[in-house]
Amino acid sequence: MANRRLRDRIHEIVFEADTPTGKLFDISLLILIVLSVITVMLESSDEWNEAYHNFFIILEWIFTIVFTIEYLLRLWVTIRPWKYALSFYGIIDLIAILPSYLSFFLAGTQYFVIIRVFRLLRVFRIFKLGKFLTEGDQLRRALIASRNKITVFLFAVTLLVVLIGSVMYLVEGGSNTGFSSIPKSVYWAIVTLTTVGYGDITPQTSIGQFLSAVVMILGYAIIAVPTGIVTNEMIGNSGAKFTNTQVCRYCTREGHANDAIYCKYCGGRLNEEA
Amino acid sequence: MANRRLRDRIHEIVFEADTPTGKLFDISLLILIVLSVITVMLESSDEWNEAYHNFFIILEWIFTIVFTIEYLLRLWVTIRPWKYALSFYGIIDLIAILPSYLSFFLAGTQYFVIIRVFRLLRVFRIFKLGKFLTEGDQLRRALIASRNKITVFLFAVTLLVVLIGSVMYLVEGGSNTGFSSIPKSVYWAIVTLTTVGYGDITPQTSIGQFLSAVVMILGYAIIAVPTGIVTNEMIGNSGAKFTNTQVCRYCTREGHANDAIYCKYCGGRLNEEA
Amino acid sequence: MANRRLRDRIHEIVFEADTPTGKLFDISLLILIVLSVITVMLESSDEWNEAYHNFFIILEWIFTIVFTIEYLLRLWVTIRPWKYALSFYGIIDLIAILPSYLSFFLAGTQYFVIIRVFRLLRVFRIFKLGKFLTEGDQLRRALIASRNKITVFLFAVTLLVVLIGSVMYLVEGGSNTGFSSIPKSVYWAIVTLTTVGYGDITPQTSIGQFLSAVVMILGYAIIAVPTGIVTNEMIGNSGAKFTNTQVCRYCTREGHANDAIYCKYCGGRLNEEA
Amino acid sequence: MANRRLRDRIHEIVFEADTPTGKLFDISLLILIVLSVITVMLESSDEWNEAYHNFFIILEWIFTIVFTIEYLLRLWVTIRPWKYALSFYGIIDLIAILPSYLSFFLAGTQYFVIIRVFRLLRVFRIFKLGKFLTEGDQLRRALIASRNKITVFLFAVTLLVVLIGSVMYLVEGGSNTGFSSIPKSVYWAIVTLTTVGYGDITPQTSIGQFLSAVVMILGYAIIAVPTGIVTNEMIGNSGAKFTNTQVCRYCTREGHANDAIYCKYCGGRLNEEA
Repeated sequence: MANRRLRDRIHEIVFEADTPTGKLFDISLLILIVLSVITVMLESSDEWNEAYHNFFIILEWIFTIVFTIEYLLRLWVTIRPWKYALSFYGIIDLIAILPSYLSFFLAGTQYFVIIRVFRLLRVFRIFKLGKFLTEGDQLRRALIASRNKITVFLFAVTLLVVLIGSVMYLVEGGSNTGFSSIPKSVYWAIVTLTTVGYGDITPQTSIGQFLSAVVMILGYAIIAVPTGIVTNEMIGNSGAKFTNTQVCRYCTREGHANDAIYCKYCGGRLNEEA
Repeated sequence: MANRRLRDRIHEIVFEADTPTGKLFDISLLILIVLSVITVMLESSDEWNEAYHNFFIILEWIFTIVFTIEYLLRLWVTIRPWKYALSFYGIIDLIAILPSYLSFFLAGTQYFVIIRVFRLLRVFRIFKLGKFLTEGDQLRRALIASRNKITVFLFAVTLLVVLIGSVMYLVEGGSNTGFSSIPKSVYWAIVTLTTVGYGDITPQTSIGQFLSAVVMILGYAIIAVPTGIVTNEMIGNSGAKFTNTQVCRYCTREGHANDAIYCKYCGGRLNEEA
Repeated sequence: MANRRLRDRIHEIVFEADTPTGKLFDISLLILIVLSVITVMLESSDEWNEAYHNFFIILEWIFTIVFTIEYLLRLWVTIRPWKYALSFYGIIDLIAILPSYLSFFLAGTQYFVIIRVFRLLRVFRIFKLGKFLTEGDQLRRALIASRNKITVFLFAVTLLVVLIGSVMYLVEGGSNTGFSSIPKSVYWAIVTLTTVGYGDITPQTSIGQFLSAVVMILGYAIIAVPTGIVTNEMIGNSGAKFTNTQVCRYCTREGHANDAIYCKYCGGRLNEEA
Repeated sequence: MANRRLRDRIHEIVFEADTPTGKLFDISLLILIVLSVITVMLESSDEWNEAYHNFFIILEWIFTIVFTIEYLLRLWVTIRPWKYALSFYGIIDLIAILPSYLSFFLAGTQYFVIIRVFRLLRVFRIFKLGKFLTEGDQLRRALIASRNKITVFLFAVTLLVVLIGSVMYLVEGGSNTGFSSIPKSVYWAIVTLTTVGYGDITPQTSIGQFLSAVVMILGYAIIAVPTGIVTNEMIGNSGAKFTNTQVCRYCTREGHANDAIYCKYCGGRLNEEA
């Protein structure tokens, strides 16, 4: 009985953020995650690693043990542990601690703990940032709605860069070490078309520079397309936001235009004071 | 008679993707095309070519022979062979196999087989991605509708880069080997205005850097124009998608939503077969 | 009494721009600010500083003394000096003169006077560019309205670049000095995703270049999102600009154009004082 | 009399493009202008200039003489020569020939003949590309309508880059030769914020790279603003295109909304079959 009540208590603290203790727990957790990610990032830097190697190792193990305890607690207090274990957060929580243990057997795996950044997604839930979730949702819906157009667009861009890369390989390949193979030339085409322009590979011949100029101006026009797609979807989406709140008194359906006088579904007269 | 039935059978397999055999054929073809393109790309890389030269040559000939047989089959089973031979896919299919044969006579032509990527456009037909074609079509229509505006825009940009390039040649030409001629300076202007920014040619003098800064901020504003054009067209296009040509029989007004059953102005029932 | 009238006079000159003297004062002030900012910029350049060091020092002190006198005058003529001192412009005015005095004690602080550029914001008030303020306001409102979406977007981008940076560190870290630590790789990811593309760190391995290409095309699609967000808000905002709150007295319907004199639904005359 | 008829004839040929001779003249002129611009561009290249120096000089003089004769003809056949001389095309035509003559006195001025590219603007008139002019006009109107917003935007960007440049100078100035002065750092800030990213100046310190990353992500969000402005204006503009063509029978004014039943200006009932 006491055990059960304890589990309920812990569930409230670990999973919910409504009580002060629950909120404190969640915020501490977020801080620990951020600290843990920063530790891994600094550890990867030779400069810092040489100076504080042991300190980082200890810190890393403290974080891992804390996150392991937290994971076990979550499993214990959930009524259906498998449901949590197989949920999005459950999987993230597990693979956020695994790499540290795996690093006993495989060197280098400790860097995979960087996956912990995904645990930060809880931030929205903790701070009741539902509003943000709605916004994120709206963004996601706009992207999903444009999915097909974006697929066609990416397919067309892929064909284009393979073609441009091959042509540039034929033009520049002989004299320019940057364009030494078609895959490298395709890489150059992507770097150019997306206007990233590292400059690690650049055309040297006049004809190559002329072709590049054409590619750039093309990219200039092409970059407008995904923007147009997403903007278009967002406007469509938010357009729905502006529809009026009139509800038909006869069939209780909504979604009427602003200038509607009669219900478009049942023909009943709408309230005029809408 | 048997011959004719065989031709019908093969036509079904080669040209259509509705039967399991037809679908299998088309998918195998797509995989072969992708493998063939990858082979050419790897062959162009010295590293890979040295290690697997003979393997690539053999592979390349296998692909060419398979595609040649497929091309001849297509010609044979079509009732009007010339119609296929002169269609978009027919021409692509032909020039996708020609370079391999030409490479006997002209070295280097084997790279032109890269044109095979265009055969991949069949992917939409094979997987019945009609939906994607509609989307692609919508994109294409938006681009076609903006054609005039884009032409005017590109014309203006061309005048601009010639002018900017010439001014920069006068300013930087003397001291900076990058701006050694007007065409090179125009190339620099395009690299800068499109925000690619390789950095292979950069202004060195104070006045040159100041002018570049002006050009960049200009480019910043200019890049907004094609985006605006395309977005505008897309909104116009998709807006049209939602209009509905229903006219109320009682009050003869239009502008009804797609799901309207009753006229929103007078409450009269709309024709159902709209 | 004379004192008070003098304060009134000075208040008019210093704070207002309606009288010729006031306008003259404000324009002189703007010119002084621009000159002062240019002085600091040139002073930072070794070349110029060596040639005109003493001249710059003297000029800098003249500007500081003038701005100090102006600040004290403003304090003196204001009826509630603290209100001015704690206002946006009051604080800017103060921190625009402090660094020069601080440079007695701390070397290098003189460059902070660059904050004086913010004093230029007065330009809108002086030239009665209210129209511009409205425009700026509209921009600001569009940005504020998109705040939540932009926060979600930036949060997602941050997670993404940490992840991409870590993966690239694992891929390129061994052989490429550019990707020597995760923070540097994250820096590279940001440089690439935003399409800035300095080229100071570039992938060298084939797999690294392939991943970069994916990141770039991703960035290509992602850059469309903030544009969509802002455009969407601006359209929403300016749409609102055209609506008009007039309601017809005869049929109580709204949605009239700004230049409407009669109701477009019933033909009744609209209130003129709308 | 014969003189006058000759002048009329020449006027028709030189100024108009409706008759076959007039069209031939104009097209020849366009070709000459393009050839002349190409000549100047090639002349500026050391490689080409060494090989064909004399040829270029002769060509250049032929073009200059032809354009001079054409200019004098235009002056002669116009009834009010000053009106032409002071018109946009008149001035362009003059300064397109002046540099060649000036090059007797001032070396290097011959490159200014590049201004001839502006004569190409006639292309729209010659080919009756009125449609394009309308489009260009629409673009121009969208840009003019966004003028105020763009001014505010550029003013804000200027303040921002001065500030960012100064901060980066303080951070990187000591150790990095690229950030050797505030103007150079401001140049870097512009290169970065506009996502051009040459890479000729890049941050070296950790704190500098962190700040740059912030600037880039900022630039990412900021680039959305001009796009939003222009797109918004274009939508507004083309929106007007869709307004209906109803004209009030009582007051003959147009610009009515699609759902208008009564004239919004005079209250008269509009035709229903609109």
